[in-house]
Amino acid sequence: MSINLAHADDVTALAERTKAFTKTVVLPIEDEYDGDISAAGGDELRVDLQSAARDAGVFAPHAPVEYGGLGLNMAERATVFEEAGYSLFGPLALNIAAPDEGNVHLLAHIASAEQKERYLAPLARGEARSAFAMTEPAPGAGSDPSALRSRATQVPGGWKINGRKHFITGADGAAFFIIFARTSGEPGDRGGATMFLSPAGVPGLTVGRHLNTLDRAMIGGHCEVNFDDVFVPDVRVLGEVDQGFAYAQVRLGPARMTHVMRWLGAARRGHELAVAHVAERSGFGGRLGDLGMIQKMIADNEIDIAATRALLIRACWELDEGGHASNATSIAKTFAAEAIFRIVDNAVQMFGGLGVSADLPLSRLFREVRPFRIYDGPSEVHRWAIAKRAVSDARRTLEEAR
Amino acid sequence: MSINLAHADDVTALAERTKAFTKTVVLPIEDEYDGDISAAGGDELRVDLQSAARDAGVFAPHAPVEYGGLGLNMAERATVFEEAGYSLFGPLALNIAAPDEGNVHLLAHIASAEQKERYLAPLARGEARSAFAMTEPAPGAGSDPSALRSRATQVPGGWKINGRKHFITGADGAAFFIIFARTSGEPGDRGGATMFLSPAGVPGLTVGRHLNTLDRAMIGGHCEVNFDDVFVPDVRVLGEVDQGFAYAQVRLGPARMTHVMRWLGAARRGHELAVAHVAERSGFGGRLGDLGMIQKMIADNEIDIAATRALLIRACWELDEGGHASNATSIAKTFAAEAIFRIVDNAVQMFGGLGVSADLPLSRLFREVRPFRIYDGPSEVHRWAIAKRAVSDARRTLEEAR
Amino acid sequence: MSINLAHADDVTALAERTKAFTKTVVLPIEDEYDGDISAAGGDELRVDLQSAARDAGVFAPHAPVEYGGLGLNMAERATVFEEAGYSLFGPLALNIAAPDEGNVHLLAHIASAEQKERYLAPLARGEARSAFAMTEPAPGAGSDPSALRSRATQVPGGWKINGRKHFITGADGAAFFIIFARTSGEPGDRGGATMFLSPAGVPGLTVGRHLNTLDRAMIGGHCEVNFDDVFVPDVRVLGEVDQGFAYAQVRLGPARMTHVMRWLGAARRGHELAVAHVAERSGFGGRLGDLGMIQKMIADNEIDIAATRALLIRACWELDEGGHASNATSIAKTFAAEAIFRIVDNAVQMFGGLGVSADLPLSRLFREVRPFRIYDGPSEVHRWAIAKRAVSDARRTLEEAR
Amino acid sequence: MSINLAHADDVTALAERTKAFTKTVVLPIEDEYDGDISAAGGDELRVDLQSAARDAGVFAPHAPVEYGGLGLNMAERATVFEEAGYSLFGPLALNIAAPDEGNVHLLAHIASAEQKERYLAPLARGEARSAFAMTEPAPGAGSDPSALRSRATQVPGGWKINGRKHFITGADGAAFFIIFARTSGEPGDRGGATMFLSPAGVPGLTVGRHLNTLDRAMIGGHCEVNFDDVFVPDVRVLGEVDQGFAYAQVRLGPARMTHVMRWLGAARRGHELAVAHVAERSGFGGRLGDLGMIQKMIADNEIDIAATRALLIRACWELDEGGHASNATSIAKTFAAEAIFRIVDNAVQMFGGLGVSADLPLSRLFREVRPFRIYDGPSEVHRWAIAKRAVSDARRTLEEAR
Repeated sequence: MSINLAHADDVTALAERTKAFTKTVVLPIEDEYDGDISAAGGDELRVDLQSAARDAGVFAPHAPVEYGGLGLNMAERATVFEEAGYSLFGPLALNIAAPDEGNVHLLAHIASAEQKERYLAPLARGEARSAFAMTEPAPGAGSDPSALRSRATQVPGGWKINGRKHFITGADGAAFFIIFARTSGEPGDRGGATMFLSPAGVPGLTVGRHLNTLDRAMIGGHCEVNFDDVFVPDVRVLGEVDQGFAYAQVRLGPARMTHVMRWLGAARRGHELAVAHVAERSGFGGRLGDLGMIQKMIADNEIDIAATRALLIRACWELDEGGHASNATSIAKTFAAEAIFRIVDNAVQMFGGLGVSADLPLSRLFREVRPFRIYDGPSEVHRWAIAKRAVSDARRTLEEAR
Repeated sequence: MSINLAHADDVTALAERTKAFTKTVVLPIEDEYDGDISAAGGDELRVDLQSAARDAGVFAPHAPVEYGGLGLNMAERATVFEEAGYSLFGPLALNIAAPDEGNVHLLAHIASAEQKERYLAPLARGEARSAFAMTEPAPGAGSDPSALRSRATQVPGGWKINGRKHFITGADGAAFFIIFARTSGEPGDRGGATMFLSPAGVPGLTVGRHLNTLDRAMIGGHCEVNFDDVFVPDVRVLGEVDQGFAYAQVRLGPARMTHVMRWLGAARRGHELAVAHVAERSGFGGRLGDLGMIQKMIADNEIDIAATRALLIRACWELDEGGHASNATSIAKTFAAEAIFRIVDNAVQMFGGLGVSADLPLSRLFREVRPFRIYDGPSEVHRWAIAKRAVSDARRTLEEAR
Repeated sequence: MSINLAHADDVTALAERTKAFTKTVVLPIEDEYDGDISAAGGDELRVDLQSAARDAGVFAPHAPVEYGGLGLNMAERATVFEEAGYSLFGPLALNIAAPDEGNVHLLAHIASAEQKERYLAPLARGEARSAFAMTEPAPGAGSDPSALRSRATQVPGGWKINGRKHFITGADGAAFFIIFARTSGEPGDRGGATMFLSPAGVPGLTVGRHLNTLDRAMIGGHCEVNFDDVFVPDVRVLGEVDQGFAYAQVRLGPARMTHVMRWLGAARRGHELAVAHVAERSGFGGRLGDLGMIQKMIADNEIDIAATRALLIRACWELDEGGHASNATSIAKTFAAEAIFRIVDNAVQMFGGLGVSADLPLSRLFREVRPFRIYDGPSEVHRWAIAKRAVSDARRTLEEAR
Repeated sequence: MSINLAHADDVTALAERTKAFTKTVVLPIEDEYDGDISAAGGDELRVDLQSAARDAGVFAPHAPVEYGGLGLNMAERATVFEEAGYSLFGPLALNIAAPDEGNVHLLAHIASAEQKERYLAPLARGEARSAFAMTEPAPGAGSDPSALRSRATQVPGGWKINGRKHFITGADGAAFFIIFARTSGEPGDRGGATMFLSPAGVPGLTVGRHLNTLDRAMIGGHCEVNFDDVFVPDVRVLGEVDQGFAYAQVRLGPARMTHVMRWLGAARRGHELAVAHVAERSGFGGRLGDLGMIQKMIADNEIDIAATRALLIRACWELDEGGHASNATSIAKTFAAEAIFRIVDNAVQMFGGLGVSADLPLSRLFREVRPFRIYDGPSEVHRWAIAKRAVSDARRTLEEAR
């Protein structure tokens, strides 16, 4: 056994097919509508793109084989998802966009057989969309999930859920929700949460307004969702009661990494456009791409892309080996979110005025990638977690040495 | 004579009045329309706001007294414009928004008496808006003005101008244009440009589409403008023929600084909102504003604000002393554009998810300030100019020592 | 009254004289001994250099006129001290090196007439050196002065001091010490400290080893000093008992700024050497100074120098106006310490291999400037203080608005 | 075949043995002599340490098995060399210090059988040290190797070499030199260099003074070496005449990576010391390691360590696969040199005053790691190469698309 960083041939071939499919089929649509998924057709477009992806043999690379997916492990997803992410609509076309992709992963791990049949199967096949209802407005669960305030109380045959969520991605049009609610303890406790499955449209569950965020490429928007005495029968409890925080870990580590994969693809597109621009455009007595300050931006981007990929593959491998990889995914996510932003910011700068106009995809990418330094754990929260582990380890070592 | 950094009492009082006016009269309108000047009413709003500014005694602080202005010098403008810039619509209300403010400055310096009467006077009084038509699409005058391709050729009684411009701020609705065109030499030459005055609506002058840029607060947009055999009589040549590049310097140094003043106000607003937020909001077992990583962002912002102000006042003083201050304004502009972006970026981060949504002004500020690292000379071009001067100085010193 | 950033002619002339004196008289000695003050002659060199400075009319620019100084205010010192700092030995030559310069300032403000005669007068004239004994090893007063553990207890006729200090600059060879000791309260209290004057050589006061730090240009080293029942009569209490922390503020704000002035001069020298190098040296098909990545380093340095100066003059002006200027000096010190390090680091990089060898002054400057990000308050402590003020102000504003 | 990032068990065991050996045997000696290899005993110490390493079963992990080494590939070296690098003297103990380690690699690839017997064998066994004489003073071969001026001219039976080199690591005490000299073309040509083997002590070869650089841990120093009609017989030409630049690539890629491995170990030590310090030390009302600004430094270091390792293993794997990996090694070297510096700089800062004193290893590490951003290609040169490749690739793609 020795170190290997090459994918199997079939994975490489799939990545190539994904690349071709994304560039020729998906990208033109993104560009036509400046990345606005609603303007581009919303779910109607989704159905068309997913059908095309199926025809191209690139659909659902992440989903279990028994549900029609290609069954890639995390390390394999890294290369395929990056190619899909080259277009902001690419992940949707392959059915690997957030939050559905993470929900497929979660359900595959903790749903009952019946729940899988009813929720996972259609989700994996692209027949339905879903939402993960966790984040709450202040003073509820935001960067600090332990502040969870939505509450589920036991009633005959099931639970009644009350609470208010926001920034629920994909809520508008979702066929079902995974709801995160407190079943014991109080806000501030690091336990006592449970996950519930609920179809949309049940009494008391209302999808409110879309938050008008910098990004516009996510289908179903980022919405407010209210739960007003929403009844959930016991058979739709996901996993065990009070184990929600533990299950969230199952979802969050891999979800962080698939976010990185997709955004890396988008950032790479911005970079490639900018390099192509400065490779041709002249000014100041020569080609822009031969000017040292431009070369510095290009090289910094190349380094950031390489480092993001390298940290990503490391964390994916740890996940594939069966670990939680909390530290590796925190490190990779924090570095990647900041690197991806730098890459796109440099690409904007290399284009000058056109970089901030919608004549080119750069201003769109710039809007789209900024939130990633906040979503899935702000950089500050990940750094805090990374440092706490390092300090704890150091204290343990010091104590053992005594 | 000793160092003094305090303004005269009347200037301080004017700054205070401007602060109060901006916060109470202008800011609520900006927030209601998410900083979209067209949605907020465009020129109709402008007229109303300017009338209110006149009533509040804060109108046209920069304009010569003989044209109804308050006649502030550059250093004095620094403090007043920053307060106006606290709202994205504040500069418009005071009639000190780009490009009109810079055009008033330019016309006051180089226009003939008759030109002043006809163009400067109504502009200073807010009866008209104007545009400065310099930037051209590739391969024309962009970051490198010497690439100027629009051309004016002599005809009986005047000139015919042909060329294509873009990113012409305020063009839509401008009463007149200052047109930058080549009267001798070829693209690449560092001389041979002339400035012309032309009313809008003359034959051959067409304002095209608005470029859809990240920012939305500039009245009249950033437009394409075409000049197709536009006739300009000799009396509307601005200054002397072939001296356009020299006159551009008259405008550019101060215009850089007033941009800094205005954007600094906007950035300060973002920072103050964020500090107020973390001063109240709790999480992770305490107040967010007491967490070290948040404190670092706050302190970095305070340092950036102080350094921007300090470099600005230095450059303004040099301008007021009569110099071109090319180096000082390049240094201040470069530092400020990057600092202002960092300040707003940190403020977004301190707000978390809400920072990227339009529920708060942060995402708007984030969009608005990014272009400033490109407009009025990209940071790379200013750094290039700064370094060239330093290396030339060093070589001269070395040669003198031989 | 209007903004003015020009010095009076006599101050400018003094700065010019200082510049010439430093370059021709002092710098060659520094270079000969690679900045090692002990190797260069220690106090013997000091006496010679100070005599030369007196002859050149540049001696003791900071000291009160009645003690033979030139009586410059803080803003005026900024320009003169920067020129002296161009050589690491320049401040010593002018008698404005730390800690003597700060001690002159402190004694001029709070010493009794008799104390001034006995301690301030010879110090100002360069007849004696002094030390400021404040910093203690853990768990005593380090970055957090309130942890002060050295204790003075009242005895008939005076006080007995016990405690242990380290990093006491200039202790070896100092004629007298200003000792910081607790007269009431416990470590952790933000009050209860007193300053005492004591000649060297009294029983119980021992100067220990020099800490072997990265820098080598400070006369008298950074020493350990022990106080073992050191008796100090009441007449040598400096100011009032228990007011030590308040008096420390008198010294610390200005001392921070004079540090900045001196180090800025040193950094500027490194930068000027590097620019001269790349202005002449060829490589990669041209002059190094014309390469964009080199130009970026040059421009960044120019910006850092300008911003440091601008923040410095602002803080000095506030001090001259009579304020404590705690925030302005924290901001200026934090920015400057980091900027000065960046400047020298870039200068090293521009020289390549020679930059890290003692064949040139760069590696010396690199060693010398690093500690400044730690001395006089680490950047983290200043940022913490800056942020605390901003958050407090924000809370006050919020409460007033209720 | 799938992605794998785990080493074989025997490699892991070797890394563990190396870690234990370095910490218990080598580190105490480094600390006793503040990392000064001459003070610690020079070659005498080397012989002792290498003997101990042999006993510990960790000697020469890189050398071919037929020469008594352990025959590790590059990816395997990464983990073992990092552990050895934990002490500045560790690589010497294992016989994997520069330049010998790189010379073993080079000779194993291009030396003739006889040359291997005579030069490689004793070098691999630690019986001799060597030097690689490439770098020249200006205007010769520095960052730009094509400027090579040392010249070998053909004479009966061999060559006469004339030239002047500096920064030749390990020259003092080296048993033999690999000499880089021009055999055709002129300075500036990208071809025409040849490598020669020469024992020390031959007529005309003189080792001059040691350059007094920031670092002190390299045995044999960084020396000036002069070649004055040095005769080299044909049998000691290394590889083919005029192929020197191509052979240099064989050495440079792997040598960059082994530098990274060693310095990463050293930086990790600095980081671990700092984390242990802040995990115990109190201040500002709590443990330093719980303060957010300290946590940020810790997390940034953890991220930098992880990213360096990840980029390193990627480049090593490419080398092991048989490629030149020029881009991957440039990326890894550039990122690593800057990351390693940041890590140590943060560690210094976390220690405060003690961080800049020789009481702790931090100030030593700070001195030692700075040159790495210059040695083996300054960051600017690597960025230039990375950007040139990216721009060339972009142009090729654009041309193909036409």
